[in-house]
Amino acid sequence: MVLTASKAAKRIGRQTVVFPTRPRIVSVASVVGRMEADGPLGGLFDEAIEDNLMGQKSWEQAEVKLLERAMRLSLAKAALKPTDLDLIISGDLLNQIAASSFAGRTLDRPFFGIFGACSAWTEAMTLGAMMVDAGFAFRVGVAVSSHHETAERQFRYPIELGHQRPPTATWTVTGAGAGIIAAEGDGPRITHATPGRLVDMGVKDPFDLGSAMAPAAADTIEAHLRDTGRTPEDYDRIVTGDLGEAGKAIATDLLMEVGFNVEPVFDDCGTMMFDSRRQDVHCGGSGCACSAAVFSAALFRDLVEGRVKRLLLVSTGAMFSPTTYQQGESIPGIAYAVAIESPKPAEQGGVG
Amino acid sequence: MVLTASKAAKRIGRQTVVFPTRPRIVSVASVVGRMEADGPLGGLFDEAIEDNLMGQKSWEQAEVKLLERAMRLSLAKAALKPTDLDLIISGDLLNQIAASSFAGRTLDRPFFGIFGACSAWTEAMTLGAMMVDAGFAFRVGVAVSSHHETAERQFRYPIELGHQRPPTATWTVTGAGAGIIAAEGDGPRITHATPGRLVDMGVKDPFDLGSAMAPAAADTIEAHLRDTGRTPEDYDRIVTGDLGEAGKAIATDLLMEVGFNVEPVFDDCGTMMFDSRRQDVHCGGSGCACSAAVFSAALFRDLVEGRVKRLLLVSTGAMFSPTTYQQGESIPGIAYAVAIESPKPAEQGGVG
Repeated sequence: MVLTASKAAKRIGRQTVVFPTRPRIVSVASVVGRMEADGPLGGLFDEAIEDNLMGQKSWEQAEVKLLERAMRLSLAKAALKPTDLDLIISGDLLNQIAASSFAGRTLDRPFFGIFGACSAWTEAMTLGAMMVDAGFAFRVGVAVSSHHETAERQFRYPIELGHQRPPTATWTVTGAGAGIIAAEGDGPRITHATPGRLVDMGVKDPFDLGSAMAPAAADTIEAHLRDTGRTPEDYDRIVTGDLGEAGKAIATDLLMEVGFNVEPVFDDCGTMMFDSRRQDVHCGGSGCACSAAVFSAALFRDLVEGRVKRLLLVSTGAMFSPTTYQQGESIPGIAYAVAIESPKPAEQGGVG
Repeated sequence: MVLTASKAAKRIGRQTVVFPTRPRIVSVASVVGRMEADGPLGGLFDEAIEDNLMGQKSWEQAEVKLLERAMRLSLAKAALKPTDLDLIISGDLLNQIAASSFAGRTLDRPFFGIFGACSAWTEAMTLGAMMVDAGFAFRVGVAVSSHHETAERQFRYPIELGHQRPPTATWTVTGAGAGIIAAEGDGPRITHATPGRLVDMGVKDPFDLGSAMAPAAADTIEAHLRDTGRTPEDYDRIVTGDLGEAGKAIATDLLMEVGFNVEPVFDDCGTMMFDSRRQDVHCGGSGCACSAAVFSAALFRDLVEGRVKRLLLVSTGAMFSPTTYQQGESIPGIAYAVAIESPKPAEQGGVG
């Protein structure tokens, strides 16, 4: 491992940035599909849609509506208007991030489009926290979406084909999450971020993206812990994005091999989203909306109410391209870690 | 127009951010295809490839090589190693930004993937300047690519079909541009950035993206001038990314309508890249690499040598999705403006 000695003031260790002003997450919102609402966290989401088409003519149009609804709901919950946002950062899984650009268009704010596959949620939070901390923006809207039917037909097989899914497959979450990061206001505080490297262990199976992402998740978590000098015990929860059961086990093993036992505090939004014994999702949930909706519905609440004092949220992405896959290429993974502290007790928020 | 009074310290007017430390562009590199090398700027590019396949088995693999070569060349020209970069920000036109993720993988640095279509170059520069100015990074690599054959088959028709192109069509540049933005060193200075809004005037023709992007370019340039209190005369050059002949004329007219006569200083990288009378490119060049390569080969040199004291570079993107287009949707445009000053005279750099 190369330990770069950067001369940047707000940077520690190999790849972690620190936010001296500790930007606030002043609002979050989640909108999910019926299947997600039927899962263990069902009662916690802000809204559940009746059917995944949402009265639109295409799944893609429905995903735009989902994302726009989450964006507007995050504003409404904070009693803010779109013009109260200086910037929007948004990403999704559709080619050309079509959901983000069409939903973003309706809010009419300066817009940064990102692509980090399913890691987009914490990629957006990292960039948003940077902009707020540095004074480039007072409030930044961050928003991501995914949609089971749009993802299946773009990345694997249209659901109409009834293709059988292997046990390592995950279920792309239909939903959207949105949040507002601000320099003032109440809410959990973002203290650090560790943007990930592209890690590729040669996985080529689009039905096993958990295995493609697990090494990236482990790499980012290890970098974060080494850079900050922290141990897993310094966190009440370390939660990855959408590794699923298989990927979560791999990441746990990889971290154990480098001396970090994360198991007591480790969880994965993909395994939290669905009840895999009752719901036919195989390894769990995936998609940009998986970590965004689980964070917005459940983890954010845990932070606000003080049940979790310090969280490391690590959305995970598989940079899976059907084109390069068909050309024999493997699937690089990436993960962005964001450290978030409870607003209780007031300014400390750290674990004891 | 809504003028937001943001409370953010490094923000002025509606949507412009200022960089008090004026980050340096310490290195740039450009690699282009044979057709680009045959254009008016041919002698200025760092490298020209012999054929667009570059000895690879697919156009996409060739694009990865192009981008990686530009990244490594920008490092070599500054006598830096990949580990000297704190972060890489990269985007391209391929679905899932496949060129960026595979090229970025080889450099093994923390990575932010972006998607702004052909506006990716100044989107990346804006984010890079923010990170360097704020102290989140000491050096940031920014890099984008495009490739005629990968773009045509993904967005329109595979070139093997011999589809006839209408007069409003532009020619996607085969090439890549890369740069290094740093807190120290010699080079042109980035003083402001104006990230764009998604502007959609209802254009639905994938062979007329200049018309789709022109309103976005005009919107961002207008916002930049109003936010900074500057006039077009304060710039030696205002240069858009890839509007082409048709889009450039529309943007000029739109800016005239709101009181800004940019014509004396206005140009477009798409019209600079090719000789449209001699080369069969219709309205000019386009693609992420268009503004990146023209900037890296020509405009950067003009700044360094003092021929241009102050440049407003405005890469332009059409958020064109074949899927949503087939569903009847229009094509939103976006543009990011970056103000860059010559390092001569030493610390002033402004026009007289």
